[in-house]
Amino acid sequence: MKPLYGLIGYPVGHSMSPDIHNAALKDAGIDGHYHGFQVEEHDLADAVSGMKALGISGFNVTVPHKVEIMQYLDKIDVTAERLRAVNTVRLEKGQLVGYNTDGEGFLHSLLEALDQPLSELSFLMIGAGGAARAIYMTMAEYAPKSFDITNRTIEKAESLIESAEGKITSSAIPLNQAEERLGNYDVIIHTTSIGMYPNVEETPISLTKAKKTVVVCDIVYNPIETKLLSEAAGLGLKTVDGVGMFVGQAARAFELWTGITPDARKMKSIVIEKLGGTPC
Amino acid sequence: MKPLYGLIGYPVGHSMSPDIHNAALKDAGIDGHYHGFQVEEHDLADAVSGMKALGISGFNVTVPHKVEIMQYLDKIDVTAERLRAVNTVRLEKGQLVGYNTDGEGFLHSLLEALDQPLSELSFLMIGAGGAARAIYMTMAEYAPKSFDITNRTIEKAESLIESAEGKITSSAIPLNQAEERLGNYDVIIHTTSIGMYPNVEETPISLTKAKKTVVVCDIVYNPIETKLLSEAAGLGLKTVDGVGMFVGQAARAFELWTGITPDARKMKSIVIEKLGGTPC
Repeated sequence: MKPLYGLIGYPVGHSMSPDIHNAALKDAGIDGHYHGFQVEEHDLADAVSGMKALGISGFNVTVPHKVEIMQYLDKIDVTAERLRAVNTVRLEKGQLVGYNTDGEGFLHSLLEALDQPLSELSFLMIGAGGAARAIYMTMAEYAPKSFDITNRTIEKAESLIESAEGKITSSAIPLNQAEERLGNYDVIIHTTSIGMYPNVEETPISLTKAKKTVVVCDIVYNPIETKLLSEAAGLGLKTVDGVGMFVGQAARAFELWTGITPDARKMKSIVIEKLGGTPC
Repeated sequence: MKPLYGLIGYPVGHSMSPDIHNAALKDAGIDGHYHGFQVEEHDLADAVSGMKALGISGFNVTVPHKVEIMQYLDKIDVTAERLRAVNTVRLEKGQLVGYNTDGEGFLHSLLEALDQPLSELSFLMIGAGGAARAIYMTMAEYAPKSFDITNRTIEKAESLIESAEGKITSSAIPLNQAEERLGNYDVIIHTTSIGMYPNVEETPISLTKAKKTVVVCDIVYNPIETKLLSEAAGLGLKTVDGVGMFVGQAARAFELWTGITPDARKMKSIVIEKLGGTPC
């Protein structure tokens, strides 16, 4: 049987996952296919049992299903359990097993951009959703100096901090306070979908009070240079775009499904070419 | 969104449908994909609701699901209702609608091989399953001289004959009697999976008492020359292989999904090349 892989999310029409996974399948000599499935929330249960009944070899999960999907899976890997979100599912002996490769993908791309050890750096993360949790719970294993969270709904930030059970020094901060105190942070990480295509003019936070040495990261990768990163660059700040994290999570998912390590640089160049942009 | 099409059945690993539909999609300039889904009977309900939740544009249905699937669809086209089997499903405004293109596909390939009008010909059909019903109920619209049915379970043949409500002159006949009286028939149509790969040495009926002018049809197309057709050819009888019917139903399904008429000769040549055979 030829393998079929896919992505479920809503929307998925502008995702680059089909492009990079189909290219990786071809490079690996696997006669399979990766398809983007647009699934609304009220169809999620049927979509997941359908994936199993249809014998799909594996699939990625994206917004808004990363947390909700967990209840429909047969088994959750320990890392995904800790991150309380799933971005990759593999069919193992008829059982759907959930994994999370987002945290690892992000950490890899962040470390490439930093000059100092994590223990000397103060972080601010914007957002407290599925991707934020993946990043936060992964960072909690690496002991940064401090790691604050700001979110429109402050309770979600507080709840995320509680999940780490004191492993990491964190405060939940309202957005206006975070903007005021922005000079305290060495790294700012934006984890919501603000600024993502087609709403490319949106920006999650004002950077006017940021210190000159701050590193501004955006997990949005479409467009590559979001409004946030463009404003950061305009202020002379160092930036990390979302392509590295996106490619990192995809490469790890591909390994989980096929046992083959894909060429991450080629994946990255496909994304950059497709988006018609240049990496930050 | 790129369209995804597919086939559900068990098994499907040796089906040629993915080959001919993917080629037709490419020729039509449609950036879509056709995938063979292997689905067991106990998974059929989940597979069908999954197809809908996943937004698959259309799919074919093959053995053993052609009849069972009807209960899971939102709407059945009048022809499929009459044939009481579905081989093609199309997603129409979020609803799964069942069609049957098997009868039309078969009739088209049969008519190409006959020299006399149907009203002068006596038929014997072997089998009374989903494909047999499609052929029988289609033939009932064209008034052949007579159209008998033989089947291992004679009650299924009787029940199929009752469905036509006297529109066609038919008797249900045990297999041993059919073999004895084989000289009465002008056309023999085999509709079961006997002789299909990998059980290529099986044959559904002995042809020793057939008349010299009989036309022997087999709906099995893998291999192209089944044991039945090979024995017929050895006796100097005229044969009709299953490739024509297979390609005919596929071309009509493709039209239903895309509105585009594919090149049926190209589809046929793909099947013949893939099977490494020559058409009868």
